[in-house]
Amino acid sequence: MTRELTLGILGGGQLAQMIALAAMPLGVRTVVLEPDAQAPARLCAEHLHASYTDPAGLKRLAGCDAVTLEFENVPVEATSVLDGQVPLRPSPAVLHRSKHRGREKAALEAAGANVAPYRMIETEAELEGALLAVGGQGILKTAELGYDGKGQVRVNSKHELRAAWTELGGVACVLEGLVPFVREVSLGVARGPDGTLSFGPLVENAHAGGILRRSIYPAQSSDAAAEQARILAGAVAEAWGVVGLITLEFFELSGGKLVVNEVAPRVHNSGHLTQDGGGVSQFEAAARAALGLPMQDFLPLHPCGMVNILGWEEGHEPDWAALDRISGAHLHLYHKANKPGRKLGHVNVVGRTREEVLAGMEQVEAALS
Amino acid sequence: MTRELTLGILGGGQLAQMIALAAMPLGVRTVVLEPDAQAPARLCAEHLHASYTDPAGLKRLAGCDAVTLEFENVPVEATSVLDGQVPLRPSPAVLHRSKHRGREKAALEAAGANVAPYRMIETEAELEGALLAVGGQGILKTAELGYDGKGQVRVNSKHELRAAWTELGGVACVLEGLVPFVREVSLGVARGPDGTLSFGPLVENAHAGGILRRSIYPAQSSDAAAEQARILAGAVAEAWGVVGLITLEFFELSGGKLVVNEVAPRVHNSGHLTQDGGGVSQFEAAARAALGLPMQDFLPLHPCGMVNILGWEEGHEPDWAALDRISGAHLHLYHKANKPGRKLGHVNVVGRTREEVLAGMEQVEAALS
Repeated sequence: MTRELTLGILGGGQLAQMIALAAMPLGVRTVVLEPDAQAPARLCAEHLHASYTDPAGLKRLAGCDAVTLEFENVPVEATSVLDGQVPLRPSPAVLHRSKHRGREKAALEAAGANVAPYRMIETEAELEGALLAVGGQGILKTAELGYDGKGQVRVNSKHELRAAWTELGGVACVLEGLVPFVREVSLGVARGPDGTLSFGPLVENAHAGGILRRSIYPAQSSDAAAEQARILAGAVAEAWGVVGLITLEFFELSGGKLVVNEVAPRVHNSGHLTQDGGGVSQFEAAARAALGLPMQDFLPLHPCGMVNILGWEEGHEPDWAALDRISGAHLHLYHKANKPGRKLGHVNVVGRTREEVLAGMEQVEAALS
Repeated sequence: MTRELTLGILGGGQLAQMIALAAMPLGVRTVVLEPDAQAPARLCAEHLHASYTDPAGLKRLAGCDAVTLEFENVPVEATSVLDGQVPLRPSPAVLHRSKHRGREKAALEAAGANVAPYRMIETEAELEGALLAVGGQGILKTAELGYDGKGQVRVNSKHELRAAWTELGGVACVLEGLVPFVREVSLGVARGPDGTLSFGPLVENAHAGGILRRSIYPAQSSDAAAEQARILAGAVAEAWGVVGLITLEFFELSGGKLVVNEVAPRVHNSGHLTQDGGGVSQFEAAARAALGLPMQDFLPLHPCGMVNILGWEEGHEPDWAALDRISGAHLHLYHKANKPGRKLGHVNVVGRTREEVLAGMEQVEAALS
C-alpha cells in the first residue's frame, strides 16, 4: 500500500465531507462519528452512526492516527475520552476556550489581540451599566452554542438589553460593543505538532442575517493589514498551543487596525474558496495539520470568491442550469435536504482578476435568487 | 434535496474514483460495478461488488441517470444489456470502435484525421510485405486489450515482426509505422447530448516503457497546432456521434502537423493535471457530459504538470515527506496496494509559469526515485 493514514472526525456534516474529500488523495481514509443518518460525510467516509459519546464510536476514533472536528460544540464527554488516547487536534484546551465567548475573548487579549469592548452577563445584576461600558449599543450573544447568527440580539438601550437577555433564556451571555469596521476579513492558520505555522489567504466576507453570504480573495485590505492578520493569527495559535487549524474572524477598522471578532477551532465557511484556487485547500491543510504531515501555506494562486447556497422557499429553487453555465464557477453541493435558510452548498468562482471574479459572483447570485 | 443525480460507472479503479470525487460536489452520487473488492472507487461511491456482466449489478446501473466507463475493454455483454435502458456515454458504437486498433484507425481516417501508416495482421500471410508497407520499421500491437505499453513490440525487421506476432499469440494485430514526431500531445473533448463541444487543454506527454510518466500544460506546440488538435477532436467526436468524453493522443510532426495515435473513450491519465488548475477538471467534464449537464471547456487557469507515481521495488518507496514539502505539488494517491510499475497515484504541480512547474516536477521526480 502507498501511504495509508486514518483521520477521525467528530461530526459528519459538510465540513467533514469536504475534509474527507480533500484527505483521500493524500492517502488518508476518514472516519466520522455522527448521529445523523443522512449526514453529508457518509458519502465519502466511514460513518459511525452514533452519538458523539457512544463508547464504541469513540473507541474506533481512538484507533485513528489523529482526530479532528468540524464544530466546536462537541460534548466534553467525547473529547475527554479521546484525550490522551489519540492526538486530538485542536486540543480539548483550545476547544474549551473557543466554545465560550467570554473565555475566548479573555484568551485573545492574553495573546495580545484586540477584541471589541465586552462585558460578561451571567447574572441579572450584571446588566446594570453593561451597555454603557461597551459604548451604549451592542450585540448580546449567548456565551455558548451560538452559530450563524443564532443566539444573538442587537440592543440599543438598557430596556432592550434586559428584554434580550430574557429572550435568550437568562443564560450566560457576552455583551459586545459595536465595532465601526470598514470590512470583515478572516484568515486560517494551521500549526503542526512541531510548531510550524502555515497560513491561509486573507479573505473578505459579507454577512446578512448573521449568515456568511459571500467571500472574496484577495481582500481589499492593505498588505500591512494582511501581514497584521498573519501575525495575530500566529500569535494566537502559539499562545493557545494550537496543533491543527483554526480560523480567525476580524473586524478591520478604517486605519487598517484589526480587531478579532471570534475564533473557530476548525475549517471555516470563509475558507471554502481555497478549494478551487489552485493552491492547497483549507480542508487539506486541516487534515495535514491534524495528522502532523508537512505543511505549506494554503493560498490560492489566483483571485477567487465564494457564494453560499442557502435553502429556498418553495418555488425559489436555484436555476441549476444557469449556474452550470457561468464561466469560472465551481459548484459544491453537500447532498442535504432543503430547508429554507439552511446551508446546502456553495459556489466558488475563479478568475484572472478580482473584477472577473466579482462579475462571476454576481451571475451566481442572480442564478440563486 | 438539492439537485440529486446518480451516475453509474463500469469499472471502479482510480479513474472511477476520481470521477466520483469530482461528481459529488455537483450533487451527483456515483455507483460503480467492479469485481475487485479493493478497488479505489469503493471509498467514495456505492460499490456493486460483482462481475461486469452480473445481472443484478447491471440492473442497478440501468436505474442510474446515466452510465459511463473508465476503461474501453468492458465486455460487450455488459454494454448491450445497458444499451437502450439508460444513456450509456460514450455509446457502445464508440466503444466498439475504440477498443479495436484497426477499426479505430479506419474510423479516424473516415473522420478526416491522419493516422500513422498501418497494416492489419490477422493471418500469417498478412505478415508478408507489411513492414515495408509501413516504412520498414514499426510497432506491432494487439488489436484489442493492450494498455500502458502491454501487447506491444517494437520491430525492425521481417524476422522480428514474425517473432513478435508469435510472441503476441498470433492474435489480430496492427502493425504501425514509426512516426518521426517532435512531441506527443493529447486533448480531451466532451460532447453533450445536444452536440455542444467542450475542450480540454492541449497537454504535452512523455512516456517511458509504454507508460505515461509526465504531462505538462501548456504544451510547447504552436497556437495553430493547438487549434488543429481541437478541430480534429471535434471532427472525430461529431463523426463518431460521441456523447460523453473522449481523449485523443497525437504525434506532433516537426511542421506542427498532427497525426492521431489513438483515442481513449474516457478520461485519460494525461488529463489528470486539470484537477488542480483552477478550471473544470476532466473528471467533472466527463460526469457532466455523461449526465447531459451544461458544459464548459475544461481548461486550467495557469500552467500545471503531472508526474505519475509508479509502484516501487522494495526499499525504493517514495519520500512522502519530501513530496509533501514541494511548493505547488498536489498529491493524488489511489489507495492501491504497491506492485512494481503499477500506477498508484500521481502528483500534480501548479505554478505561475511553465518554468516554475517544470522545476517543481523535477523535485517531485527526485522525491519519487
